[in-house]
Amino acid sequence: MSVKDKTVDPAAQQMLQKVQADGVETVWDRLQEQQPQCGFGTLGICCRNCLQGPCRINPFGKPDRGVCGADAHTIVARNLLRNLAGGTAAHVDHAYDAVEALYAIAEGNAGYQIKDEGKLQAIATRLGLETEGRDTGELAKAVAQKALETFTNHTDDTMGWLKAWAPRERLDTWRELGVLPRNADREIREAMHQTTMGVDADPVNLLLACVKQGLVDGFAGLKLATDIQDVIFGTPKPIQSETNLGVLKADHVNVIVHGHVPLLSEKVVEWCNKLEDEAREAGAAGINVAGICCTGNEVLMRQGVPQATNFLGQELALATGAVDLMVVDVQCIMPSLANVAQCYHGEIVSTMPIAKIPGAEHVPFSFEEADRQAEKIVRKAIKSFKKRDKNKVQIPDEKVSIVAGFSMEAIVEALSKVNADDPLKPLVDSIKDGAILGAVATVGCNNAKATQDLNHVTMVKELIASDVLVVATGCSAYALGKAGLLHPDATAKYAGEGLKKVLTAVGEAAGLGGPLPPVLHMGSCVDNSRIGDLLVALADYLGVSVKDLPVAASAPEPQHEKALSIGTWAVAMGILTHVGLPPAVLGSDVVAGTLTGEKIESLLGGRFYVETDPKAAADGIIKHIKAKRRALGI
Amino acid sequence: MSVKDKTVDPAAQQMLQKVQADGVETVWDRLQEQQPQCGFGTLGICCRNCLQGPCRINPFGKPDRGVCGADAHTIVARNLLRNLAGGTAAHVDHAYDAVEALYAIAEGNAGYQIKDEGKLQAIATRLGLETEGRDTGELAKAVAQKALETFTNHTDDTMGWLKAWAPRERLDTWRELGVLPRNADREIREAMHQTTMGVDADPVNLLLACVKQGLVDGFAGLKLATDIQDVIFGTPKPIQSETNLGVLKADHVNVIVHGHVPLLSEKVVEWCNKLEDEAREAGAAGINVAGICCTGNEVLMRQGVPQATNFLGQELALATGAVDLMVVDVQCIMPSLANVAQCYHGEIVSTMPIAKIPGAEHVPFSFEEADRQAEKIVRKAIKSFKKRDKNKVQIPDEKVSIVAGFSMEAIVEALSKVNADDPLKPLVDSIKDGAILGAVATVGCNNAKATQDLNHVTMVKELIASDVLVVATGCSAYALGKAGLLHPDATAKYAGEGLKKVLTAVGEAAGLGGPLPPVLHMGSCVDNSRIGDLLVALADYLGVSVKDLPVAASAPEPQHEKALSIGTWAVAMGILTHVGLPPAVLGSDVVAGTLTGEKIESLLGGRFYVETDPKAAADGIIKHIKAKRRALGI
Repeated sequence: MSVKDKTVDPAAQQMLQKVQADGVETVWDRLQEQQPQCGFGTLGICCRNCLQGPCRINPFGKPDRGVCGADAHTIVARNLLRNLAGGTAAHVDHAYDAVEALYAIAEGNAGYQIKDEGKLQAIATRLGLETEGRDTGELAKAVAQKALETFTNHTDDTMGWLKAWAPRERLDTWRELGVLPRNADREIREAMHQTTMGVDADPVNLLLACVKQGLVDGFAGLKLATDIQDVIFGTPKPIQSETNLGVLKADHVNVIVHGHVPLLSEKVVEWCNKLEDEAREAGAAGINVAGICCTGNEVLMRQGVPQATNFLGQELALATGAVDLMVVDVQCIMPSLANVAQCYHGEIVSTMPIAKIPGAEHVPFSFEEADRQAEKIVRKAIKSFKKRDKNKVQIPDEKVSIVAGFSMEAIVEALSKVNADDPLKPLVDSIKDGAILGAVATVGCNNAKATQDLNHVTMVKELIASDVLVVATGCSAYALGKAGLLHPDATAKYAGEGLKKVLTAVGEAAGLGGPLPPVLHMGSCVDNSRIGDLLVALADYLGVSVKDLPVAASAPEPQHEKALSIGTWAVAMGILTHVGLPPAVLGSDVVAGTLTGEKIESLLGGRFYVETDPKAAADGIIKHIKAKRRALGI
Repeated sequence: MSVKDKTVDPAAQQMLQKVQADGVETVWDRLQEQQPQCGFGTLGICCRNCLQGPCRINPFGKPDRGVCGADAHTIVARNLLRNLAGGTAAHVDHAYDAVEALYAIAEGNAGYQIKDEGKLQAIATRLGLETEGRDTGELAKAVAQKALETFTNHTDDTMGWLKAWAPRERLDTWRELGVLPRNADREIREAMHQTTMGVDADPVNLLLACVKQGLVDGFAGLKLATDIQDVIFGTPKPIQSETNLGVLKADHVNVIVHGHVPLLSEKVVEWCNKLEDEAREAGAAGINVAGICCTGNEVLMRQGVPQATNFLGQELALATGAVDLMVVDVQCIMPSLANVAQCYHGEIVSTMPIAKIPGAEHVPFSFEEADRQAEKIVRKAIKSFKKRDKNKVQIPDEKVSIVAGFSMEAIVEALSKVNADDPLKPLVDSIKDGAILGAVATVGCNNAKATQDLNHVTMVKELIASDVLVVATGCSAYALGKAGLLHPDATAKYAGEGLKKVLTAVGEAAGLGGPLPPVLHMGSCVDNSRIGDLLVALADYLGVSVKDLPVAASAPEPQHEKALSIGTWAVAMGILTHVGLPPAVLGSDVVAGTLTGEKIESLLGGRFYVETDPKAAADGIIKHIKAKRRALGI
């Protein structure tokens, strides 16, 4: 496989040449070595949930049942539910960390402050809490306690965080289907129970449980995490930065933050600034911090920290030879990093009790000691800088300017410069009059099975050329940033005439001296909740359901179980959700057919849409948007 | 494979001939069709946790890593932790149902009463609750609230239900290892997060998380479920009954309760009695109810309901043609039942929202409406009886008398007849003087990979002949009952001289007019907690740790993920835990070696012991018991 088949990212292409020369194994080599991948697993028709197995279903005949009698439909649905429980647990655990931190702050036991009192107030009000006469600490505690009810509700009532934010029409739809979650942890536990041997054999019942997991993910994972993180670290505002491996600096101590939870990375960024002098004493020009994956997005959105690279580039960042230390928290961290690091000088530091890597050093993180730990980690980076082998350093001269920080609040703020009294009106009018055809959220991962970034970039270029406004998060935002699409210049270059006009009008009114970028970077994967909030606001404004909007979601290169749980939430919200690689469901026509079919669309409004060709996917999405427009009579 | 290779149960052997004649597929056929089973899955070195996979490790070379870089050790440990999370979730969800029921009872919202106020008082006292001046309802509510704290504790404190019952020495050991659970649901969620792509890559860290799941299972699953169920349904006392398919009656309406949670089965038993007249009107001589799996054990232990058969016999029960209705709740219910039922007349009724079966009727269960639902189900059975095809009926003339009901309380009660002031003394003295060599708990499932019941029976006969007292639960108790080992007559026939003497002395003192059986049936799988309680009491009495006792546990034919989580709890308690079939860990010498090695034994006191030959396993266990005796100086 040629380098160009592996990635369209020019920096990654350079580094792939280098790792080859250096004899370093990467994710693409391992994917190659795994060929042919197991057909049973690929189709989802392998079951390992009991000791009578493992069982495999023959898609062409016998055996058509596992030892217990489960057929392909049961097995595929059960596996999918377990995958969703994994993805959901990851997001919920992340949100829980944030809630714990808020609680600790309110109690005065954490090395953090509350940066966005306005958001705290807004959340408290929405939750129906008394805000009058309460100081920030009291209010933070009340909100944290309410957040904890997401995990402590033992009645049949609906999970409060969902009830507070979900539109009534959606609540009714979900109630009707019996998929309203009560308590995030309880639903995860129940899904695990449900998928053990000899519990649920009904694929439809299992798929309904999948929808429930999606709702847990969306509201007790994404929404809860974003809300609380905004309170603690501030709600993002438009901010300029840069992306791709060229942001690494040969003469600086280079620290990379990688993972998903901003609790540590925010502190690391802080201490990178504080210890500049020590770095200079060590012979460096300063300390440069850059991000990978979503913890990188978090510090980009709020502090303008440049992005090093997305998921598939994490090993390649080390291969520059210029990364002195990579500190990781949780999720999407390749276990191979420790091996790659051994070939260069960079140190890998793990920090979370549930995420250790053999060969990496572990500096345990805690809220209380966050400063001390971040300080320790940055000092390690400075020490590591001294060991850097200059002969091994090769930083690709590839970096791209980007604008990020488009929280829902920031978007409304920009729109209010056009119409202060009715900020959503200009956007809605532009949609109504067809200047903007619709909107698409591109989200999610890289996956070595697809050329890195290719699906993201190809699809989005098609969409914006057709006047579709694109919002992005996660590794998708990285991909689009590296391709120049997060920059205002891209509007002139790639956007269709209608979209260009609107983005220019809003950008100029907002005092940007030019258009908004054609792709708005809305944050990390948990920040998909921002997209949900925006869609709910638009639907409310129009007096319709989210499911009626001319919008779609897409994970062009999905990799993680989280992509599946996010996607399921999106479908539950009523959104057509494209995936550029099929999940392991093709072994059951019942499951695959249900997830992508008319039945689920009639029940939920949304459905999955599998299309591996990015141009065809863009066409399909545009067709869908046009159909939604027709249904709305616009 | 001959019928005798499939099962040693004579009733099952007859039914296997019948299903063959009737052209009905069973679990053994499906196991045969699955051959050869996937070697990667069998060894645990297949990963399906992300969309870059599925990945497989070649145990003999390359690829030695998955696409992300996870090696065999990471993959095996991650899969094991997910399996344990499944098993743990099953037990915790079961316990939660019981807690919910207790709460509803306390609020007057459930069709149940509290049958064991003494146990409620004892639990409340142990939990440090005020009992003085509180009526049963108030106390039940206080206990239920305390039980709910198992799921609502959001501090770093240890889970209360564990803290209240675990010995101090164990608490210290677990604290030292960092494996003390805080909140059952939180730990399950965390384990799921920990096993997603790019989180934990450290097999040792993952194995410690496995230990934590074991503790959640033991205390928030087994112990919590048993405690609350005893309060609601009564603490078992020795009771006579019968086992095996011969308990079905040709002239009766035959109802089978199958699954694990007694909430429904207790009600079904009640309504089988109440609707006898209707059955007679329908031409039956009455209604006969019998159990399969653990819900069968629950109603046996408390009400003497006969046992139809254990896990591997569930399809064969339907093949008698005499089962008019089988009502199922959760766990170990073969999805094939609906297919088998179609070949006869019996109806399958599912009842739990998370456990439906295509082809079965669903009567949703709720605490509030339990009576109405049970009534409806029994009426369905009567209706089904009328459709019975007598030409298809063949009930094996195989049933065996058994004594069950040996709760911890019942055992102490029996011993107190020997020494009222110091009930444990006679047992401890017998162990000290060598009349009883030690004790072994045989627990867990059947597994079609092993001849049904063979491992259970062979091993236990060896053990009791060597003066080892055996206690049993779950499908193991069924196996031993069918083999006659739950009957006092077996003491004379199979027990060694020392054991015989003690069992006879206790039995006669307790007014049984003969010996206790050589195997004491202690209940369902969740009732393994009774065994834990007994061991803790014995250790306390001797002033040693559980890990020092001359005891062992064994799952001779493990099948379900629950067997793995129970086993891990047993190891964490400090007990040598035999498994007669290896779990999917053999693909990592690190994982398999750790679970069975000296290191874990030095840390926890217990370890896993894999031996597929039941005689060799008995020998190994006896050797272990003798070593423990030597260490104690007895």
